[in-house]
Amino acid sequence: MLSLRLTSFTHLFSPPTSAAVAHRSPAILRRRHHPLRQRPLASSFSAQSAAAETKDRVDNSKNRVTERVITPRSQDFNAWYLDVIANAELADYGPVRGTMVIRPYGYAIWEAIQEYLNVKFKETGHSNMYFPQFIPYSFIEKEASHVEGFSPELALVTIGGGKELEEKLVVRPTSETIVNHMFTQWIHSYRDLPLMINQWANVTRWEMRTKPFVRTLEFLWQEGHTAHATLEEAENEAIQMIDIYTRFAYEQAAIPVITGRKSKVETFAGAVKTYTIEAMMGDKKALQAGTSHNLGQNFARAFGTQFTDENGLREYVWQTSWAISTRFVGGIIMTHGDDAGLMLPPKIAPIQVVIVPIWKDDEKAAVLNAASSVKDVLQRSGIKVKLDDSDQRTPGWKFNFWEMKGVPLRIEIGPRDVASGSVVISRRDIPGKQGKVFGISMEPSNLEAYVKDKLDDIQSSLLEKAIAFRDSNIIDVSTYDELKAAISQGKWARGPWSASDEYELKVKEETGATIRCFPFEQPQGIKRCLMTGNPAEEVAIFAKSY
Amino acid sequence: MLSLRLTSFTHLFSPPTSAAVAHRSPAILRRRHHPLRQRPLASSFSAQSAAAETKDRVDNSKNRVTERVITPRSQDFNAWYLDVIANAELADYGPVRGTMVIRPYGYAIWEAIQEYLNVKFKETGHSNMYFPQFIPYSFIEKEASHVEGFSPELALVTIGGGKELEEKLVVRPTSETIVNHMFTQWIHSYRDLPLMINQWANVTRWEMRTKPFVRTLEFLWQEGHTAHATLEEAENEAIQMIDIYTRFAYEQAAIPVITGRKSKVETFAGAVKTYTIEAMMGDKKALQAGTSHNLGQNFARAFGTQFTDENGLREYVWQTSWAISTRFVGGIIMTHGDDAGLMLPPKIAPIQVVIVPIWKDDEKAAVLNAASSVKDVLQRSGIKVKLDDSDQRTPGWKFNFWEMKGVPLRIEIGPRDVASGSVVISRRDIPGKQGKVFGISMEPSNLEAYVKDKLDDIQSSLLEKAIAFRDSNIIDVSTYDELKAAISQGKWARGPWSASDEYELKVKEETGATIRCFPFEQPQGIKRCLMTGNPAEEVAIFAKSY
Repeated sequence: MLSLRLTSFTHLFSPPTSAAVAHRSPAILRRRHHPLRQRPLASSFSAQSAAAETKDRVDNSKNRVTERVITPRSQDFNAWYLDVIANAELADYGPVRGTMVIRPYGYAIWEAIQEYLNVKFKETGHSNMYFPQFIPYSFIEKEASHVEGFSPELALVTIGGGKELEEKLVVRPTSETIVNHMFTQWIHSYRDLPLMINQWANVTRWEMRTKPFVRTLEFLWQEGHTAHATLEEAENEAIQMIDIYTRFAYEQAAIPVITGRKSKVETFAGAVKTYTIEAMMGDKKALQAGTSHNLGQNFARAFGTQFTDENGLREYVWQTSWAISTRFVGGIIMTHGDDAGLMLPPKIAPIQVVIVPIWKDDEKAAVLNAASSVKDVLQRSGIKVKLDDSDQRTPGWKFNFWEMKGVPLRIEIGPRDVASGSVVISRRDIPGKQGKVFGISMEPSNLEAYVKDKLDDIQSSLLEKAIAFRDSNIIDVSTYDELKAAISQGKWARGPWSASDEYELKVKEETGATIRCFPFEQPQGIKRCLMTGNPAEEVAIFAKSY
Repeated sequence: MLSLRLTSFTHLFSPPTSAAVAHRSPAILRRRHHPLRQRPLASSFSAQSAAAETKDRVDNSKNRVTERVITPRSQDFNAWYLDVIANAELADYGPVRGTMVIRPYGYAIWEAIQEYLNVKFKETGHSNMYFPQFIPYSFIEKEASHVEGFSPELALVTIGGGKELEEKLVVRPTSETIVNHMFTQWIHSYRDLPLMINQWANVTRWEMRTKPFVRTLEFLWQEGHTAHATLEEAENEAIQMIDIYTRFAYEQAAIPVITGRKSKVETFAGAVKTYTIEAMMGDKKALQAGTSHNLGQNFARAFGTQFTDENGLREYVWQTSWAISTRFVGGIIMTHGDDAGLMLPPKIAPIQVVIVPIWKDDEKAAVLNAASSVKDVLQRSGIKVKLDDSDQRTPGWKFNFWEMKGVPLRIEIGPRDVASGSVVISRRDIPGKQGKVFGISMEPSNLEAYVKDKLDDIQSSLLEKAIAFRDSNIIDVSTYDELKAAISQGKWARGPWSASDEYELKVKEETGATIRCFPFEQPQGIKRCLMTGNPAEEVAIFAKSY
């Protein structure tokens, strides 16, 4: 059996260390869970935000959340990221080290990802199904050359029903082995092909350096698995799926990923080819946000997955697998967020428009009445809208709160607006007065059209901004010195490459950067390898990555 | 901490025995996986169907599936059930004993269940989220009186990242403990209440007697968890959720469940009250198909889940939990299926209408053309339709195949139909000529209306048939002798009950039947306990159950 590790989610240098449960008793748990005290191994809350959080926890008064402070992004990107996750209530730490509780607001983003992809998968002929998560250890052991590298990441069930098991069970880190075991029983002839399935599931990898969404002990994903009669079909499928991921990233998440092929060094062990989408985060580090593998016949040979072709001959099937995970939520946060907090593209925002009514005493009924009709108008036209009519908080507090939660549009309605039959609309992506327009008529068809138009604007604007950021941070290089200079500035380097694996590892060792991909989009003209000066057919992109 | 066992999915008498993986090497796996050889502990394929299956596996020729035989339901209900699951490709056995692979057709039924319930949960104010599946063993241990009864069902992770863990991790059997651990951190004041969440997840219980869908080592479910400021709110929530399950069962699955309250003996340990929906299967055994618990403050006290009320006092929250699982798919099979196989209610059928074209040689193009427009007409109107245009099988084979798969309506189109612009429509629920209507006009609006009308008819007809079956198999009893007689006939007994827990256990011991519930719908009038003759306020329903 070949390696099970989808490169997308594998931390290559996880040292196998003891994986203790962080806490023993609930009393301790509650105390230690506090952000001030519980610092994940690879990350910590900034002192500033932790202090704010402490104050928040202690002070239960009406305006406690206004006390929260998010570390400026430019000051400490990692602290900013964790602050946003905590303050926007996207996720929390689970009681077991490295695990994450995905809270409703974070989960709603994941649901938006699921809804889009699930439709695309079905449109392209895939069926959902479900495989058990317990895999006999012998399945994993089949390929001796890989079990050694893989076992550091496994969680093993050794006791079931109060007794020691005869064979340890692996909690699925990915499902190629069990999928092939079942495919072998379902595939008989060419008529059973292609077999194209997907599952939405949890997977477990015993990561030592964890970070919410980006790398957790357990995460959620979809894993597609297909079997075909020919190599060409499998290759087309692998390309089709990375294309779907690419379109999702651009059109829904407004993340201008660079799509390409992994180098041999970075290819999923066991795959013929690995395709990837690489996203540039706000700190310019690369995030591998989805992968699609042409597995060739490697797993088929390891598991004996054969079919009878039209000539009656027994052949091994050609396979693919492809996955996107809750890591993508981390990518959305780190692409669009700013010092004020989260900034969500309208197409994946759980709340697209928040209405904040503003009143004093006897104006309340009229204002709330108007706010409520505006809400109904927008809701009926399919817009995800929330009316924040709580009287626990001031309008100013609400402005900050919903900005921090990344809601794309805010509608303000005060007594004067009610009188004039209009509203004030503010864009999350354009701060201050520049993003604020007064006197938009409440008339339903006008308001609906205006809001939809503005949401479209924001969606394209976020993408354009991310494209500009990406392109201004990729440097074309033609020598190794230029590459080193680019990486040391924290940028991505793009240059012709035809050098050996050894040279690729040397770059990694010396600069910390890896080949993220050979992009599908290649420049014209004759190229010379930046390392060796030999002819090169392609440029590669080098970057530091998550 | 109180018991984690939702009574709905708990096999009370599972002996804790070794839970070996069934197989060691793939070669053996493939052989042993064969239905003929792999017999689950509590069930076996009938010799007849196994023989048919063997033939099927060996013979890869064009018509191999026609060789399949389903054991008649009346002959051996359990064998029939397993044959239907295998032949309709709903599920397969996983490599680890007691695990199940849910195949696309079976998973599509689960998706229909999810789609309906997910909307209802959100409409009633619940948010989806996700909790980690690994729970520190100490959480489970908190309630000493329950760990003893619970541990036989636990799967434990003891090795992670290649090292022995300091604390064993429980693979979630249900999430009350971890939910309360997190709630304690999120709930501060009455303003944070009610907190109403749900998760769709996999859960693991080390069951020894397994049966596909009905009881498996790992299954899929949703588990709702809520916290409230008052007992009344929690009680209302528990009732609201069992009502949603009841409506789902009647209106979508056409299963006329009996909804009621569990006896004290059968109440989820830790709950104040457990509500249940009980379904009568085709063999008249009861299936507990969903439960909703009013947990009172029991878990809150065990975990210290408190809030500050409007007077500034610290109070424990009041909680509920409620669940429906993939077990429900088993309930659908065992309620509606017949000797021909599966029979699916239109509202949850993955395919509502199958079109079978019938042609000879030169008629093919015209027939397929007509069939294809019929398909488009129905698809556009939102009907789930499949055109079986394969030329690998005869029309007769296709009729049998799609009947076995439980598709509610079949449309036949032959050359004469094309000529007359009409089709033939057959109902799955009315066998033979009686269910077949000729000469339905292909004219789109006519056809669409006819098909929708017939699907509605089938939906109600399946429910009526199931109600009639249920009601003819519940016997009103007023003495213990009458109860014993009813149970020995395999029926359900309904009679007044106010006797002690000891008497309840005596009934179980002597008849094998348990109190399924005290139904919400109670007869009028003064009642005397069937066991003691004392006044009784309610009737109870007794039955043998899965």
